[in-house]
Amino acid sequence: MDLFGMLNLDELSHGLSSLSMFPYFDMAHYIVSVMALREQPGALELSRRSPFACWFSSMLFCFGGAVLSSMMLAEPPIAPLSNGTSVLLASIFWYLVFYCPLDLVYCTAALLPLRLVLTGMKEVTRTWKVLGGVLMAHGKYQDSLLVMITIGWAKGAGGGLISNFEQLVRGVWKPETNELLKMSYPTKITLIGAVLFALQHTNYLPLQKHHLMLIYTVFTVVNKTRMMLTGSSVSPFAVIESAVHETLFARGSSPYAALPADDTSTASTNGAACQHSPATANGEEKGSPKAKGQGEGEKRSPKAKGQGEGEKGSPKAKGQGEKKTD
Amino acid sequence: MDLFGMLNLDELSHGLSSLSMFPYFDMAHYIVSVMALREQPGALELSRRSPFACWFSSMLFCFGGAVLSSMMLAEPPIAPLSNGTSVLLASIFWYLVFYCPLDLVYCTAALLPLRLVLTGMKEVTRTWKVLGGVLMAHGKYQDSLLVMITIGWAKGAGGGLISNFEQLVRGVWKPETNELLKMSYPTKITLIGAVLFALQHTNYLPLQKHHLMLIYTVFTVVNKTRMMLTGSSVSPFAVIESAVHETLFARGSSPYAALPADDTSTASTNGAACQHSPATANGEEKGSPKAKGQGEGEKRSPKAKGQGEGEKGSPKAKGQGEKKTD
Amino acid sequence: MDLFGMLNLDELSHGLSSLSMFPYFDMAHYIVSVMALREQPGALELSRRSPFACWFSSMLFCFGGAVLSSMMLAEPPIAPLSNGTSVLLASIFWYLVFYCPLDLVYCTAALLPLRLVLTGMKEVTRTWKVLGGVLMAHGKYQDSLLVMITIGWAKGAGGGLISNFEQLVRGVWKPETNELLKMSYPTKITLIGAVLFALQHTNYLPLQKHHLMLIYTVFTVVNKTRMMLTGSSVSPFAVIESAVHETLFARGSSPYAALPADDTSTASTNGAACQHSPATANGEEKGSPKAKGQGEGEKRSPKAKGQGEGEKGSPKAKGQGEKKTD
Repeated sequence: MDLFGMLNLDELSHGLSSLSMFPYFDMAHYIVSVMALREQPGALELSRRSPFACWFSSMLFCFGGAVLSSMMLAEPPIAPLSNGTSVLLASIFWYLVFYCPLDLVYCTAALLPLRLVLTGMKEVTRTWKVLGGVLMAHGKYQDSLLVMITIGWAKGAGGGLISNFEQLVRGVWKPETNELLKMSYPTKITLIGAVLFALQHTNYLPLQKHHLMLIYTVFTVVNKTRMMLTGSSVSPFAVIESAVHETLFARGSSPYAALPADDTSTASTNGAACQHSPATANGEEKGSPKAKGQGEGEKRSPKAKGQGEGEKGSPKAKGQGEKKTD
Repeated sequence: MDLFGMLNLDELSHGLSSLSMFPYFDMAHYIVSVMALREQPGALELSRRSPFACWFSSMLFCFGGAVLSSMMLAEPPIAPLSNGTSVLLASIFWYLVFYCPLDLVYCTAALLPLRLVLTGMKEVTRTWKVLGGVLMAHGKYQDSLLVMITIGWAKGAGGGLISNFEQLVRGVWKPETNELLKMSYPTKITLIGAVLFALQHTNYLPLQKHHLMLIYTVFTVVNKTRMMLTGSSVSPFAVIESAVHETLFARGSSPYAALPADDTSTASTNGAACQHSPATANGEEKGSPKAKGQGEGEKRSPKAKGQGEGEKGSPKAKGQGEKKTD
Repeated sequence: MDLFGMLNLDELSHGLSSLSMFPYFDMAHYIVSVMALREQPGALELSRRSPFACWFSSMLFCFGGAVLSSMMLAEPPIAPLSNGTSVLLASIFWYLVFYCPLDLVYCTAALLPLRLVLTGMKEVTRTWKVLGGVLMAHGKYQDSLLVMITIGWAKGAGGGLISNFEQLVRGVWKPETNELLKMSYPTKITLIGAVLFALQHTNYLPLQKHHLMLIYTVFTVVNKTRMMLTGSSVSPFAVIESAVHETLFARGSSPYAALPADDTSTASTNGAACQHSPATANGEEKGSPKAKGQGEGEKRSPKAKGQGEGEKGSPKAKGQGEKKTD
């Protein structure tokens, strides 16, 4: 790509791609991850009540991606523990962030300027992790783009994807929320990175690896810094996302046909109509009577209620919920 | 088996056993599975709120068996994703069933005649999946009947067996119900199939593979059709099951001895008697004091209450609950 | 070690180390494990309602360690099922303990003297399981002490570590409790054993294997017997634990500095101060807005409340909760 040549970015991208994450960037990753854990509700009491669960939870924050991608490829999920140095480093930062006298370490690292630097460095490690995942998958499934994307994503955003089980370690259980239901910004940006690196690796993307690494790293760091400074959690893809969502996934208006409102209503009523009648027929596929029982159970159980409120939380779901379900 | 020769079923069974599931039968499996997901409570809102979780959930419905059996044999659970064509097909049907304008696809497929055909074809794939699982297990554990049965079962009924975690993807969590606690019809019929094919493969069953395939396929298809037409969820084994249950698992009346009612009551009181005293002794095995604490927790937590009601739902459990626990 | 020579314990330890666990000690392990399951709240009704879930749960009690350690090393978790004899033995004891007429087996085994013997024998198997796990890990990760400890621990105390999922099989779900949050005595003693055997195997511990086996076995058996006879659940390490906990994990009083009370308070207020401001900044790391939403959700959802009470249950957590979080 000549642009890089013109801007003399070639050697810069080469320098970046030959950068070693160990030890400084890894350390930044560990400290930022442990701080993220500490800022979870209830984490501080946990650190007093049962330090071991707190330590294990921190390790999942630091090495969740490696654990998840290993499991997906049927490689030992215990592997990260075999790298003594990393575990030792992560454990030291876990201890300092949670138990340092006068809370010095946490308060220092939490100062905005320092935090900006640390978070920026953590974002850099994301590039390496995603790329590592893509290569790892390519080693086992040469020709499968989908697997490369999934593993790259899992390795880069593992901590978030397994958050339900990481919370379970801390005795917290929030089944109504997970990263697949509502992706957080890091999960999204990692997914995009995984797609890009997988496309590059299979030569669908006419870019050299080190150029892509530079572009992606700069984008993530700049964007993350912007979000921290403005304190806004608006993802830069919000517009595209909603556009795609409207085009593809809004019932009744699909690429194949644009429908006036009344048609849509008919559609939805059709939907309701042809939803009920056969439910009894095929319901057995997943145990229709049981499902009914569960339905009632749902209405009774407060958790389900909480979920209901959660749904109401998102106005779209609410509107459709009223239209389609009642 | 001469019977097959007499009825000229040999070439039929041969033809069946050489039938390829791809693409038509697989397509029927995908569409029926996705429709089963769509008929789950809350699935429609989910498909609007977070299409990605909906897609992932559909994939678990379509490939759950492969994922579960792979995990059990420590093979990459991601493998199904590496078969691009199947994933593409399943994704297309997921999209059409959930987002097709005017809901055409779902409503068409939900018409009883068409649905009968599709479900019949899906039942056919069950035979191939169970057999595939048995062979897969045989490759790793030649001599273990139990492993063959388990893997065959997992591969054929995986979607149901992992339903708790498939629901978790959708933000639904019903710990009080799972396929082991209360098997649905598909899970039962798959277990029976796994047992038969495992016995046949280890030559305990004096039948040729293609004959067994024919018999099992015909049975599942006919039976499923009957259930859909009559709309009854009564499994054909209900009688046998209850008989076995009464003989083996009803406290006090076991193969070893038939006991009058008073003896049983003594037994149960003995049970209660010798249950409490040593509980404190051995309770430490699983943390007796904690267990007590949890007991109270159970009484407090509404979820546990919901469960209690669930138990009361089944009269037998209720009766015994009163006898044994209080 | 001359001491052993002097006390003529050499041949004794040699005899012990060459002892075969199969069949008698294994049988004791199975029967005690199944009895532990039966003494769980609700297990008896389960055994009537759905014998299969009960059987599966028993298998997890008996082979949980093998399953967990296999998964951690990416070996087939189904492997235990391939050992037909063990599964058959365990299943027989499962049947006898739950369904024997007049409850003879359970009541007999529950008699204190017999139970003491059985539990003692079960404790002996612990030594073999931990050692087996350490060797298993050493085969894959020669130089990693941490992996050896983890696998040894998982293999020896697996049943407890996976208890959340074992309970899920029975339709019970207690996310607020797990063995990492609050270790039970068997989990602790197994962890210590794993550490000792891992150190011995890597020659950091100047002891011969059979000597360590003798010492550890005697300790566990004697200690377990004492606890059963006195009915006390006080672990022998309580003192050390609380000392370590006070030294390392009590906020403000760490090895680096001893602080007067006011400093601590400053620390905690600092903590609060530097906890809130940047939370919004880095919150995005795990989705700050979402986290907030969950926070509210927590306040609403009864489960979270139950948890809150659970925390208040432990006075320390309560005190700190008030200090640090509000």
